[in-house]
Amino acid sequence: LSVLLLPPEHQHLRYNPLKDSWVLVSAHRMKRPWAGQVEKPPEELIPRYDPRNPLCPGNTRANGEVNPSYDSTFVFENDFPALQPDAPDPGSDQHPLFQSKAARGVCKVMCFHPWSDVTLPLMKKEEIIKVIDKWAEIVEELGATYPWVQIFENKGAMMGCSNPHPHCQVWASSFLPNEPAVSDRCQRAYYQKNGEPLLVQYAKQEAEKKVHYVLIKIKFPIAFLLFLYLYCCSSGLAAIMKQLLTKYDNLFEVSFPYSMGWHGAPTGPHLKEDNSHWQLHAHYYPPLLRSATVKKFMVGYEMLAQEQRDLTPEQVTHFALYTDQCGTRFWLTSAIAHL
Amino acid sequence: LSVLLLPPEHQHLRYNPLKDSWVLVSAHRMKRPWAGQVEKPPEELIPRYDPRNPLCPGNTRANGEVNPSYDSTFVFENDFPALQPDAPDPGSDQHPLFQSKAARGVCKVMCFHPWSDVTLPLMKKEEIIKVIDKWAEIVEELGATYPWVQIFENKGAMMGCSNPHPHCQVWASSFLPNEPAVSDRCQRAYYQKNGEPLLVQYAKQEAEKKVHYVLIKIKFPIAFLLFLYLYCCSSGLAAIMKQLLTKYDNLFEVSFPYSMGWHGAPTGPHLKEDNSHWQLHAHYYPPLLRSATVKKFMVGYEMLAQEQRDLTPEQVTHFALYTDQCGTRFWLTSAIAHL
Ligand SMILES: [Zn+2]
Ligand SMILES: [Zn+2]
Repeated sequence: LSVLLLPPEHQHLRYNPLKDSWVLVSAHRMKRPWAGQVEKPPEELIPRYDPRNPLCPGNTRANGEVNPSYDSTFVFENDFPALQPDAPDPGSDQHPLFQSKAARGVCKVMCFHPWSDVTLPLMKKEEIIKVIDKWAEIVEELGATYPWVQIFENKGAMMGCSNPHPHCQVWASSFLPNEPAVSDRCQRAYYQKNGEPLLVQYAKQEAEKKVHYVLIKIKFPIAFLLFLYLYCCSSGLAAIMKQLLTKYDNLFEVSFPYSMGWHGAPTGPHLKEDNSHWQLHAHYYPPLLRSATVKKFMVGYEMLAQEQRDLTPEQVTHFALYTDQCGTRFWLTSAIAHL
Repeated sequence: LSVLLLPPEHQHLRYNPLKDSWVLVSAHRMKRPWAGQVEKPPEELIPRYDPRNPLCPGNTRANGEVNPSYDSTFVFENDFPALQPDAPDPGSDQHPLFQSKAARGVCKVMCFHPWSDVTLPLMKKEEIIKVIDKWAEIVEELGATYPWVQIFENKGAMMGCSNPHPHCQVWASSFLPNEPAVSDRCQRAYYQKNGEPLLVQYAKQEAEKKVHYVLIKIKFPIAFLLFLYLYCCSSGLAAIMKQLLTKYDNLFEVSFPYSMGWHGAPTGPHLKEDNSHWQLHAHYYPPLLRSATVKKFMVGYEMLAQEQRDLTPEQVTHFALYTDQCGTRFWLTSAIAHL
């Protein structure tokens, strides 16, 4: 066939270098008629303070503990932790097909703000800086011993989060989980071959192509990757987070739901290793949608065979390069994250 | 710590030998109070024939084609295929970070029965045999050239399937998708080291342990793996499918929703290779639930770090070994599939 591949027209496989895996993109399917509209769900009225909300200042939680009257961030141990510090070791005398391993850890909850009716994009830049600084502090504290500290925020009922109070979770574990283990392997292999971190070369390549400087083209929520290309300062990061999340809220005319989390170099025993291949980054995943309003089910082909999307990243958004006032260069891309 | 690990009490990591990855099992979390009840959703009345349903015999589909008045199975090309036979090749001159590959294929829909108001467990054994024989025929036909033929069934609205008519899909692709590629690698490595297929040794080990002979212990839907341990005959398979799915329907008092699909050795160019390491099997995935009624969201920690479950497979179901009347030995396990 001598036809040229046009990504928005023809199905193809797209490589994800951070996962060393492929996604089937069937872009031609979008020629099916679809609304292109985002329904505006009825805005729920969230009270600033709810006496029954276990995350509000001064309230009593399930285990009987009383929250302090905090006025900035507030961190406490999760009352129903998936990871506890003291689980026993199953031992090593196991058949290779029936292996289990010890899993120990700590789960914390971190409130961003004393008020339930704000979200990160609605907070002041100074308040977001305090969240970022607290993230850094927690990673430093738990990362002193645990090899992986996962910070993640599930926002909105569509992401399974029923509590409207602005907060995230921190799970530190005695093991390197699957996703960062794959990411570590991919970044290390790339670095060893090319002498520069994968994500730094990625940003340079995108900048060279000069095709990507519009943030959002059409109203379709897209996953993206945010990374701090040169040097991280919390003020610049606060500014870009506020800008980006405000843009999403305004574009979709809702408090935009997402799951996000940070991926940095492993910690604990890995602190002694050379981690030059790692580039700190955050993943932002909006709800996975079939059309702009219908949730996509990850079933059938996706579970049994391969990830599949009906849009190319280029069809729905382009990328933005920012340089903040302190000289930090941030890079935002959706090409790796896919939809 | 000298405490013994009790899987239903203590968190641990569980190995999945078919995926070479680990799942975090936080079984202690189930001590949280939960209803343990399965809500019985109102039974929708499904008409045997619906003039607007594009899958019914004699009806006209979106592309104007008219279905024949079929009285058994009926196969046709998907009107909105994710894979088409003629997509162009993006070529090989690509930066390693921005790779794409050609993806070609065929998507078919297969109706199991002319009636919309039946499901596999409600069909007669002779009718299920016809479905199985048609599956085999399609895999042989498409597998003559395509390296992978994925048969999968999404059943029920909870699995994103809006059409009640009993049917499955078949997607044949010019590439080996991620999931079977990993499974192929794991089974091959195991076979090379141990001289017998992974799943055969798995079944033997489970049989030796003699701990698993009750099908369902408590009412919690669980993923399982069904495989044909010795020799496959469609009559024996039809019997076990009917038995198993009827049991699920009765236990949960609903037409039980699931996604299922077959994994067998790769086809097309791989037909010439030695595939002794492969053991044909089917995966059955029920909806992923947080409690028996609340859907679990795959967000946050799962997307960013690792799969996590609140139950061990042993807590919710045990396994069944069947030997059918033709001497075929089937093996059913939930330990690999996890929840
Ligand atoms: Zn990452
Ligand atoms: Zn499989």
